[in-house]
Amino acid sequence: MAKMAVVGAGLVGSLWARMLGNRGHEVVVYERRPDPRLGPLHGGRSINLALSDRGWKALEVAGVSDLVREIALPIRGRRMHAVDGTRTFQPYGLDGQCIYSVSRAGLNRILVEAAEAMPNVRFEFDHRCQGYTKHDDGVTLHLEHQGQPLDVEVDRIFGTDGAFSAVRGRMMRNDRFDFEQRYLPHGYKEVPMLPGADGSFQMEEDGLHIWPRGTFMLMALPNPDKTFTCTLFGPYEGEDGLNHLTTDDAVQAFFEKHFPDVIPLLPNLLKDWNTHPVSSLVMTRCFPWNDGNRVALMGDSAHAIVPFYGQGMNSGMEDCTVLDALLEEDDDWDRIMAQYTTVRKPAGDAILELALQNYIEMRDLTGDPRFLQQKKLEARLQKKHPERWLPLYSQVTFSHTPYHEALANGRQQQRAMESVMADAEKWNHFEDDRWMEAALSALDQLQSATT
Amino acid sequence: MAKMAVVGAGLVGSLWARMLGNRGHEVVVYERRPDPRLGPLHGGRSINLALSDRGWKALEVAGVSDLVREIALPIRGRRMHAVDGTRTFQPYGLDGQCIYSVSRAGLNRILVEAAEAMPNVRFEFDHRCQGYTKHDDGVTLHLEHQGQPLDVEVDRIFGTDGAFSAVRGRMMRNDRFDFEQRYLPHGYKEVPMLPGADGSFQMEEDGLHIWPRGTFMLMALPNPDKTFTCTLFGPYEGEDGLNHLTTDDAVQAFFEKHFPDVIPLLPNLLKDWNTHPVSSLVMTRCFPWNDGNRVALMGDSAHAIVPFYGQGMNSGMEDCTVLDALLEEDDDWDRIMAQYTTVRKPAGDAILELALQNYIEMRDLTGDPRFLQQKKLEARLQKKHPERWLPLYSQVTFSHTPYHEALANGRQQQRAMESVMADAEKWNHFEDDRWMEAALSALDQLQSATT
Repeated sequence: MAKMAVVGAGLVGSLWARMLGNRGHEVVVYERRPDPRLGPLHGGRSINLALSDRGWKALEVAGVSDLVREIALPIRGRRMHAVDGTRTFQPYGLDGQCIYSVSRAGLNRILVEAAEAMPNVRFEFDHRCQGYTKHDDGVTLHLEHQGQPLDVEVDRIFGTDGAFSAVRGRMMRNDRFDFEQRYLPHGYKEVPMLPGADGSFQMEEDGLHIWPRGTFMLMALPNPDKTFTCTLFGPYEGEDGLNHLTTDDAVQAFFEKHFPDVIPLLPNLLKDWNTHPVSSLVMTRCFPWNDGNRVALMGDSAHAIVPFYGQGMNSGMEDCTVLDALLEEDDDWDRIMAQYTTVRKPAGDAILELALQNYIEMRDLTGDPRFLQQKKLEARLQKKHPERWLPLYSQVTFSHTPYHEALANGRQQQRAMESVMADAEKWNHFEDDRWMEAALSALDQLQSATT
Repeated sequence: MAKMAVVGAGLVGSLWARMLGNRGHEVVVYERRPDPRLGPLHGGRSINLALSDRGWKALEVAGVSDLVREIALPIRGRRMHAVDGTRTFQPYGLDGQCIYSVSRAGLNRILVEAAEAMPNVRFEFDHRCQGYTKHDDGVTLHLEHQGQPLDVEVDRIFGTDGAFSAVRGRMMRNDRFDFEQRYLPHGYKEVPMLPGADGSFQMEEDGLHIWPRGTFMLMALPNPDKTFTCTLFGPYEGEDGLNHLTTDDAVQAFFEKHFPDVIPLLPNLLKDWNTHPVSSLVMTRCFPWNDGNRVALMGDSAHAIVPFYGQGMNSGMEDCTVLDALLEEDDDWDRIMAQYTTVRKPAGDAILELALQNYIEMRDLTGDPRFLQQKKLEARLQKKHPERWLPLYSQVTFSHTPYHEALANGRQQQRAMESVMADAEKWNHFEDDRWMEAALSALDQLQSATT
């Protein structure tokens, strides 16, 4: 079988190494950081992640889903906190449909060990990628190890080295390679919420808690150790901006004004605030995702997105599922690599767009009564006509519909809902269900107009 | 005075070195290529360039415009060639308003020598920039010379090293630095048109010749040695795409079909076609253009654009004029550098947009009778009411109005012209001039609505 180099031993890289290993290839994973099992996580990366159906499918393909289930905490929906203390629950999907909170470090350990357990997969940590050179018989991967250059000859390279990918950095020098890195004018800071005095969770552990406040929001996602990871997302600039939350007084006043119900749950807020960094939010896009038949980008190296749809990891894992399926169908690497870009590039662009939209939804619309009403109506519509109405969130989170198709469907659904919600006198949504047929036929019309 | 490093000895770098030299700074220009005066130009760069008012102003500020006038060939307007041989002349501006064709190599030589003639300016060729490190007292510029690393300590660095700038490559690693590189799906190939048998120009030398053909076009710009540089711009893909013009038969048939009047003027077409490369067309955008008070990007390193407005060099030279004026007004480098980004970033975005639009105008609209009629009407309007109507092309080419203001003005003018041209029965544009007042008042209304 072929010699494969995977650059980056993060979630996508180690998962992909396992899939390549399953296919019998000889795989070496080169990672610039030390072995993550030897110490704490490096860099300002989020502590926990939301795993949903696309991720689970990839884990199943790789044969590691059972191991991951042991560390996954089910999350049934959003739990919204208004300033006045009012709380609202909004389920993510139908009964039993959940997303799962997992620890990045725990998941990474499982994936590295599942790959490393194979006789044909090896990990080399402390190896920094410095680029590559394609030639007729293969590709030379240029590495640096302990300050010394090291070249290795392989058949293919898979760049899974994240938003600031060195593999992509080399591709950027290719003629006609498009690239964009764009930062949100917003950043974030994480602080932990410890268990209560009795050792248990301080809030419902089945929800992603959100304090929507217009231009900024607080979020909390539970961990199996009964803590929550709380994250404030907000603009750098402006009166309530992160750049101004730099003194104890300012932070205390900000939380008292906007998140009064959280203050008793965060006794160490000021200390934690001062010791945790503000992190930025970057998006990247590029094209193509392959360099001929020799190199491909997967995960954040191809499409880094903002975290608001919980799809960053899931979309990267879906890259693995899709590329693995192409390997199953074909053995011509020219076709496989070109097809990979063709299939996945529109999906990557779409989830980038969806994730941006969801930031506005989470921080602003989840505090809007009309938006919440629409979500309730859509949930009723889905329950009554599950075959005709799958809400956008469910398409993204609980289906394997390509993201760009989900995005297009979602836009049509939004227009269909607007058409029945616009005239409140005509449609008494909570008295009878006549509006449902109107919404469904509006959707049918929109769909038939585009196909 | 301060120690200044300029990275890149191209047109913008050598001009800026001269301006810094004029202000008494100690300047060293580091260029990765050999001295351009020792051999032919490197890389697939255009042979000649159009110099217009913004460029001339910068040359005047630097005190080198008289030297450049000696090598500049005036171009009065566009000379369009239809497939059937019909030819149309469209002046660029009022009588006496011209753009100027200059040789890149000749202009670069003048600028390097004008800078080098100063006792406080030095050039170091064969020095490749590898990045920089800011520190409290200045900034270390990391270079490579003859395979060896070389660090130099300076007060400021100016990155004038082009579309693939190494200085910007280092800035890209800064948190919250936005960057985009995007290629057109079109490329170009240059072929020379030699003088005729009598040693003179084969076409009128006062025009930029255009063969507009919808999705592609041929262009020819005269040189002082009686040659023209002919450039085919077109898509890579498709029936008439550059990717298919790879055999003598295909090239011959393509020129016979689309540019029959050129064939007798290009006896060496097939040989030249085969020996000249296809070059791609890249655009770059980034933000910010400065790294604190230590580093700034100028010219293509900050804003590489497509060549269709003839403003690539002119916009880079205008960066020099603007930054030089900031140096005249202020001596606080925090303010100077921040202000430079604030003032020039919107201008860079606008000229990128304008240059893209002009590609469509040149290759498609210049063959459209309605478009040509509008241009004639605008020229008449300008002649009669010069204080109230300055066509967009003139604002960009013959004024110093910031590009983003020109872009906004141009959009309003377009809407005003559409409002009077829409109703041909009401306005008999060629019988009387009543439409002029209507167009002017439509423009006034649009302008007052936005101010």
